[in-house]
Amino acid sequence: MKLYTYWRSSAAYRVRIALDLKGLPREDAPVHLVRDGGEHRRPDYAALNPQRLVPTLVLDDGTVLTQSLAILEYLDETHPTPPLLPADPVARAQARALAQAIAMDIHPVNNLRVLNRLADQFGADAAAKAAWYRHWIAEGLAGVEALLTRTPATGAFCHGESPGLADVCLVPQVYNARRFEVDLSPFPTVARIDAACRALPAFQSAAPEAQPDAG
Amino acid sequence: MKLYTYWRSSAAYRVRIALDLKGLPREDAPVHLVRDGGEHRRPDYAALNPQRLVPTLVLDDGTVLTQSLAILEYLDETHPTPPLLPADPVARAQARALAQAIAMDIHPVNNLRVLNRLADQFGADAAAKAAWYRHWIAEGLAGVEALLTRTPATGAFCHGESPGLADVCLVPQVYNARRFEVDLSPFPTVARIDAACRALPAFQSAAPEAQPDAG
Repeated sequence: MKLYTYWRSSAAYRVRIALDLKGLPREDAPVHLVRDGGEHRRPDYAALNPQRLVPTLVLDDGTVLTQSLAILEYLDETHPTPPLLPADPVARAQARALAQAIAMDIHPVNNLRVLNRLADQFGADAAAKAAWYRHWIAEGLAGVEALLTRTPATGAFCHGESPGLADVCLVPQVYNARRFEVDLSPFPTVARIDAACRALPAFQSAAPEAQPDAG
Repeated sequence: MKLYTYWRSSAAYRVRIALDLKGLPREDAPVHLVRDGGEHRRPDYAALNPQRLVPTLVLDDGTVLTQSLAILEYLDETHPTPPLLPADPVARAQARALAQAIAMDIHPVNNLRVLNRLADQFGADAAAKAAWYRHWIAEGLAGVEALLTRTPATGAFCHGESPGLADVCLVPQVYNARRFEVDLSPFPTVARIDAACRALPAFQSAAPEAQPDAG
């Protein structure tokens, strides 16, 4: 499988973790989102991914898959061991809700294209963009912390005792929080689970700094 | 099942469509997002949904589910007829990617809380907020149109000849586009599918104007 990725993209980071957790070899094709106005804007990449976003996963038969959460569900359906989701429908819904509280309610609002638009439309400088970024991470992680602490399903990881879909989304978001110097002390469960994940080889090999295109 | 809903919420609208498509009775509990500073901010609602977002679905045994896409997957797993997703893993991934291109890349950036933040942080007035809104709908629907036109899987609906997960997300987004007077002529496939959906009873009974709390 060929993964079009950018080292600092949270969405690509999620898919790298899942592939590495499942022991699936990935051939990485870096797409630099900043250099030369963004390689994701080139026509050859847009032909592959009309939304001009990373990641894109190309299967060995040439099938093109986009959208990180859709790719994660595909990987779990076709390579079920180790599972990213539990078996029970209610448990699956709760694990997915945690993943989506991050992937839908925090990350899209802080995406690079949104920060660029704040600059273009409102003249936001670096400080204003950082304030925007931190606002949504803090509000979002407060919701995630509350979801985690209210259910006994939370274990060493977001759902039970092995890493899954929500953890795959959580770690890239906490990476961003640290990068923007967000105080994590109000979110002790989030911080504990993030640390447990980052102790695992799959989360280490998928980390931004471990990628060949980092820097 | 009890659905905490707001007539104009796209996320609640998605769940209403799915429940009505599957013929599942819904007991609606309106949560007014604007009146009195927002009923979603009240402690009793926050206890149910720590993210203070709609929808929330409470099952007959009291189980609380949040996040619209997680709820849609739950409904499809527990009430599989008619299905919201196809059976083949690649087809499922492509249908989910379409749904997420809307639910992750358009809607979160245009949510009411984001528009409020633009006003608070950047002093955005109604015209600036409308420009922001239209920008993301136009960019997002261009991506959705391109995804739809490049695959033969697109039929009368987003995936094949019956409405599914992507349609459930598309119609509320096109409703918002019309509300903000976005020109839909660059997106003929989107417009065609939206019209096909809105001809169906489930999409009509779930529409914002058909809700008791509309107005």
